[in-house]
Amino acid sequence: MKETSFVLRGGIAFSESPHGITTYYRGYVVCVDGICQGAFTDLPEEYKDLKLYDYGERLIIPGMTDLHVHAPQYSFRGIGMDAELLEWLSTYTFPEEAKYADIEYAKKAYEYFADDLKRCFSSRAVVFGTMHNEATIELMNQLEETGLITYVGKVNMDRNGGVDLEEKDAEASLQATIDWLEAIDGKFVNTKPILTPRFIPSCSDDLMRGIGKLSKERNLRIQSHLSENVSEIAWVKELVPESTSYANAYELFDTMGTPECPTIMAHCVHSGEEEMRILKEHGAYIAHCADSNMNLTSGIAPIRKFLDAGINIGLATDVAAGSSMNMIKTMLITLQASKMYYRLVDQEVKPLTFEEVFYLATVGGGSYFGKVGTFKKGYEFDAVVIDDSKMFSMRDMSIRERIERMCYNDADAIIKDKYVRGKKVFTSTTI
Amino acid sequence: MKETSFVLRGGIAFSESPHGITTYYRGYVVCVDGICQGAFTDLPEEYKDLKLYDYGERLIIPGMTDLHVHAPQYSFRGIGMDAELLEWLSTYTFPEEAKYADIEYAKKAYEYFADDLKRCFSSRAVVFGTMHNEATIELMNQLEETGLITYVGKVNMDRNGGVDLEEKDAEASLQATIDWLEAIDGKFVNTKPILTPRFIPSCSDDLMRGIGKLSKERNLRIQSHLSENVSEIAWVKELVPESTSYANAYELFDTMGTPECPTIMAHCVHSGEEEMRILKEHGAYIAHCADSNMNLTSGIAPIRKFLDAGINIGLATDVAAGSSMNMIKTMLITLQASKMYYRLVDQEVKPLTFEEVFYLATVGGGSYFGKVGTFKKGYEFDAVVIDDSKMFSMRDMSIRERIERMCYNDADAIIKDKYVRGKKVFTSTTI
Repeated sequence: MKETSFVLRGGIAFSESPHGITTYYRGYVVCVDGICQGAFTDLPEEYKDLKLYDYGERLIIPGMTDLHVHAPQYSFRGIGMDAELLEWLSTYTFPEEAKYADIEYAKKAYEYFADDLKRCFSSRAVVFGTMHNEATIELMNQLEETGLITYVGKVNMDRNGGVDLEEKDAEASLQATIDWLEAIDGKFVNTKPILTPRFIPSCSDDLMRGIGKLSKERNLRIQSHLSENVSEIAWVKELVPESTSYANAYELFDTMGTPECPTIMAHCVHSGEEEMRILKEHGAYIAHCADSNMNLTSGIAPIRKFLDAGINIGLATDVAAGSSMNMIKTMLITLQASKMYYRLVDQEVKPLTFEEVFYLATVGGGSYFGKVGTFKKGYEFDAVVIDDSKMFSMRDMSIRERIERMCYNDADAIIKDKYVRGKKVFTSTTI
Repeated sequence: MKETSFVLRGGIAFSESPHGITTYYRGYVVCVDGICQGAFTDLPEEYKDLKLYDYGERLIIPGMTDLHVHAPQYSFRGIGMDAELLEWLSTYTFPEEAKYADIEYAKKAYEYFADDLKRCFSSRAVVFGTMHNEATIELMNQLEETGLITYVGKVNMDRNGGVDLEEKDAEASLQATIDWLEAIDGKFVNTKPILTPRFIPSCSDDLMRGIGKLSKERNLRIQSHLSENVSEIAWVKELVPESTSYANAYELFDTMGTPECPTIMAHCVHSGEEEMRILKEHGAYIAHCADSNMNLTSGIAPIRKFLDAGINIGLATDVAAGSSMNMIKTMLITLQASKMYYRLVDQEVKPLTFEEVFYLATVGGGSYFGKVGTFKKGYEFDAVVIDDSKMFSMRDMSIRERIERMCYNDADAIIKDKYVRGKKVFTSTTI
């Protein structure tokens, strides 16, 4: 029997829509050839010959998708958090990323990143590297080994990075990108390249246009940053004076993507009606980074408005402006941010519910990878098994209650096992 | 040699003012008879005969003070967090607290609370029990055993608690309070009683007046809640129509305390100029509960304004509206809340700095207990030793950087040892 065909038993929770969480107490979830066959109260006859792993009282939830995370920033997370975006970039981030020119440095730092990503709630991630090809290929090698499914980008930046973190010009940056793509061509199963112009202040017009062209020619997706910080937005308006909005600037360079080849835009804290229209039209994904947006005093993105407008949304940790790769901590901060937007900014914009945030962390971001993020039949089988027994209770709690409690007490939710496309990629040796 | 006289060596950090964090790499901090003698780069000759505990690269910081936490709510923390205050109280909190009429139930639940409080960053706490005398005495017994220094209150509530969580009337509530005080008189060294009228909606005018009188007669401090939620504030205005503000209502009942016998008011999210003046005049303490105030969509208290006005402030977890007793997680959320107040509400009110929040978590709340919360000479010796080696870094970090990083990654900061008044009250057996 194949290793990627089996049955898991335990306390199961997943989203079928943003409006509810489907749960099974001591239920079954079935994986055949890495594909979910559904969740059941009683195990259907046809699956009774499959190997059964009984996790008892433990929780089983879909793997989560971290839609925006900077691998080279992981090692300095949680530092310099009193700064705002542009100061934080120039003081902490760019000097650190410049060190990845040294492959030995990169190798060591990325081992730490890859190992921790393997140990957290994410089964999928969309990752920024640095502008360095060699280091980025090392990162992809390491991520491939984890068994996680990722997109990874060599960063493009030909201006405003300082002497140590700038490519010579648009041509050099584009050529490096092509070299990178050729070097990894056919090398990976789990790890895909994604074009990664850092953000408009880092990329000349020619570079942006070149990225847009490359994306079309090679059917490659793009990730970048949009409308994170008020000073950044003003700067973009100076840099691209003909644009009607920051999103429109990306549009002018043909980098906003299509529904078939969607661009991810991190943040969108200050995106108004025009940017919402552009994001929607292009089928772009918003990577909502609530932790980061609070830490760098950027603000709070109006996710409820984006949801109502039918824009694609996933959650993201945005390490190191977000301080942790823990997606359940991200869920908590997403909820808190949304409550504060309602209370402090606009009481017409209701807070996100726990159900909606759980949906965004699993299906919302998962959909960027296809049929991913839930235990409905036909979805790729990503699952995390969680031991929450450290959290005492005076009464039996429902699976729904335990899932919520876990997100509000992330430090006490211990991952036992993690599966990606039906392969076990991590197992805890301590519980 | 006395057990409460010794030297600790390690990475030391503490506040001498809100504007900086004093650090020593491989420094010494000296405790004689439970009192701190100061921190040093080189150990002074006079202390060289004391027993030295060398913690190597570990961090040593002052114990923190949790200025507001509800013991009976701990076991259901992290649940029902989509509700606002009044719904949350009636749906989750009051039914749970009613169970503490059963002493066996209370005993079991409080064991869990007391044990976790012992294991966290707090060396001091100000605690709400329930209205039940027997359960509250059990809580005090258990807290006394931990070696932590606490104030604990039997809750007064003679209205709006529902059938199962209401005292008969003011007289009954006051008599129960006197009975409770007599039952514990002289029993504890570490555990002091504090008068605890829940909040004005729970206490009739007669009860509030009686508490005020009792406080004066017996020189007992008071704790309560102030201006947490907009619906609550409107309700208080209906209940005490002659009051000019919620704080003034407490003042009318003579429960706002004095600088020598200060009242703690949790929240003050919506406190304006008049309430600030009242708090200041009475020398009251604000227990700032940022996590709780986000979770219950209450809002964000303008702590910068309160600091500028010279009002006493400490930080608090407010479990279970706050979801964790972890004070360093509370510090992170306090920072995020203050940044969002600045960004979304009033850009004249600058965010709190990391230094200020560290000060509030240690000295700010500690001062409620006297000379507590720092390693300056003459302060009571409360200390927490932390292993942060799980957090990898590519370079040597300063103690200041490690302290900040720890707060942003609370799950990876492991407590090795905790001292209160020079007594070791907790030691980890796993690291």
